[in-house]
Amino acid sequence: MPNVISLPRLRAHIETLSRFGKNPDGRGITRSCWSPAHEEARTWLLARMKKAGLSTSVDPAGNTFGRLGGKGPTVMTGSHIDTVPQGGHLDGALGVLAGLECLQTIHEKGIVTRLPLTVAAWSDEEGRYGSLFGSRAFTGKLDPKRVPGFRAADGERLVDAMARAGFDARKAHKAACDPRTLAAYVELHIEQGPNLDASGIPIGVVEGIVGIRRNRLTFIGEPDHAGTTPMAWRKDAFLGAAEYALRAREHVVKRGSGRSVTNFGRIELEPGVSNIVPARAVLLQEIRELDPRILPRLERECLALGRAIARRRGLRMTVESLSRNAPARCAPRVRTAVERAATALRLEWKRMPSGAGHDAQNLAKITDAGMVFVPSKGGRSHRPDEMSDWKAIERGANVLLHTLLDLAG
Amino acid sequence: MPNVISLPRLRAHIETLSRFGKNPDGRGITRSCWSPAHEEARTWLLARMKKAGLSTSVDPAGNTFGRLGGKGPTVMTGSHIDTVPQGGHLDGALGVLAGLECLQTIHEKGIVTRLPLTVAAWSDEEGRYGSLFGSRAFTGKLDPKRVPGFRAADGERLVDAMARAGFDARKAHKAACDPRTLAAYVELHIEQGPNLDASGIPIGVVEGIVGIRRNRLTFIGEPDHAGTTPMAWRKDAFLGAAEYALRAREHVVKRGSGRSVTNFGRIELEPGVSNIVPARAVLLQEIRELDPRILPRLERECLALGRAIARRRGLRMTVESLSRNAPARCAPRVRTAVERAATALRLEWKRMPSGAGHDAQNLAKITDAGMVFVPSKGGRSHRPDEMSDWKAIERGANVLLHTLLDLAG
Repeated sequence: MPNVISLPRLRAHIETLSRFGKNPDGRGITRSCWSPAHEEARTWLLARMKKAGLSTSVDPAGNTFGRLGGKGPTVMTGSHIDTVPQGGHLDGALGVLAGLECLQTIHEKGIVTRLPLTVAAWSDEEGRYGSLFGSRAFTGKLDPKRVPGFRAADGERLVDAMARAGFDARKAHKAACDPRTLAAYVELHIEQGPNLDASGIPIGVVEGIVGIRRNRLTFIGEPDHAGTTPMAWRKDAFLGAAEYALRAREHVVKRGSGRSVTNFGRIELEPGVSNIVPARAVLLQEIRELDPRILPRLERECLALGRAIARRRGLRMTVESLSRNAPARCAPRVRTAVERAATALRLEWKRMPSGAGHDAQNLAKITDAGMVFVPSKGGRSHRPDEMSDWKAIERGANVLLHTLLDLAG
Repeated sequence: MPNVISLPRLRAHIETLSRFGKNPDGRGITRSCWSPAHEEARTWLLARMKKAGLSTSVDPAGNTFGRLGGKGPTVMTGSHIDTVPQGGHLDGALGVLAGLECLQTIHEKGIVTRLPLTVAAWSDEEGRYGSLFGSRAFTGKLDPKRVPGFRAADGERLVDAMARAGFDARKAHKAACDPRTLAAYVELHIEQGPNLDASGIPIGVVEGIVGIRRNRLTFIGEPDHAGTTPMAWRKDAFLGAAEYALRAREHVVKRGSGRSVTNFGRIELEPGVSNIVPARAVLLQEIRELDPRILPRLERECLALGRAIARRRGLRMTVESLSRNAPARCAPRVRTAVERAATALRLEWKRMPSGAGHDAQNLAKITDAGMVFVPSKGGRSHRPDEMSDWKAIERGANVLLHTLLDLAG
């Protein structure tokens, strides 16, 4: 019988953490980074870490650490304790509290590992002020010159939010670690998609985190009178964008990897009134794909398709690149450790990409990184009814435990 | 040689009126109804009418009249002197000032008609506060209970705007006329579309003013994660709306009258962010058609198409009717008078619908009404470079003159 974590204790921790920032009337949890609810949760987490026998620290970016063991490069695990507005109780929280549970189990059982172990709660993973902020700072990718410009969608500045929580945003970049102090990183997370739940497989071994290309496409036509201009004469920017969206979607489905996805989350028309033909249609598109050769090809082919559609319709199309995240491959060493752990626990597993972004993609730039997924009921996340079975959570935490034991030797 | 109007005088009047509300730097004319610029223009117009030998009046809805001749039902002409923001110098102004020119010509030449003649400038045709407001009041279609709710897009209330100009909005409905006092109505207007300009035909005989159906269609899907949800699982409200717009456009073009038009001037997505599949797409559609049997059929068929597309894509579709204007047929008696006048002046003419709304559609409900179109350069209107040749304007005004002489007997 291998070592196992305590589900009752892990469940109690998850349920307790979910009270910080809980909205009334079942409208989920709002625990934005640096908010009073988040800072109370941090204080609670630090107390739990100390109680578990870990030595604690908080870095200049607000990343919270609990460490077990002495010198040498550390094997890390973790995730985040901030949530989206009206989010659920597992996204982020599971990875932090399961990591804590693993270290506490190792400590209590008197297991001595060759390498030290660390559990981390990374700041502002959800990006109220800046996506994956804490892990970006920790991995040395935070440009201090850009920090004063970081703002939430409601206009609040990061510097003010951090100051309110007792941090100096201008020093956040000093959280950058020396990569030589790290041995590996592995993060447990709910899948946030329906694949594991639908297939009945309890463990997802993440192959990598998809790259994302986000573009703002503007189709430009003429603002003709919608009553007096014959249909054949119109240069309708909206219809150009509509045709593009439908055909680019088909292209990504048929000519991608089979797992490539694209989304058009926003479109705005100008002048935007009923009786004038749309002269401008501004369309947001993102494309996600794990394969670093397929992603830029799909983007290039979509844009060529857009230009051809625009030309045929008498429109112009301009493109503004909004962001380009490269795909992050998980390290084979970490993947293999996860697979060995799942197999030892007699749990079925499958390899899969992560379609969502995670702190692991930043860690992957400086150390061997990987992720373990457990099923999300119905694929739901970022909403109050985000859910996994407690049994599924227990399986995932035990896979994390044995992965950490494997990596820490 | 038939009687003709004075182009130099008409041109001088058009140029003078265009100075009221002229924007600096060539950004057209902004002369919204009830604004100081509009009220100064009204004062100027009343003086021109008196100078032309007309007896003047202003009704409780702010409609401004100049009358030639005594008792009996009157033959009316007219249009409006308000403009859209940054509009041109002909839309509305041409019909009022050509009408004035016709009456002045008849008066000066000592022609005595069997019926009296009246030129009208209708209030707020452009609908800053309420579309076709003045002619609606005059024809008894203004519901006084709705007047306190009339507001401009910037929030200004009609009651305040009218009070500032010295009018009591609560009395506007008292402008309603006795239809027995009217013999006919004919309005000269620029086409606001490209048909006459492209075909080189100087006179358009308007068969009727199209009816308009405006609907707000809401496609409802699921707000799935745009990275983790497989493409085949998504219920994307935007792609449903996009497919609908493309196919409904084709349907209206292929199964309409050949002159049926449709437009999708606005679309809004919720939640409207890059990384969430659109759960709601709210699409404005309008359909315009002259034939009162074809218009409702097209609307019905489009909505059935929308529901079928929604069903196939796993979406729901709801429909909210925003407005339903019935087509307004021009009276054969007025059409024939216009055609006779054009033929007598050796001008080529063609019959055509008006794709835009006009005060004539309200007058058509209570009297025999018709319209004369002259070419718009490039089909442009509602913009500073709205333009017709002065020769084209002269031809149109002379057709109006002989139509009025025909109708007034």
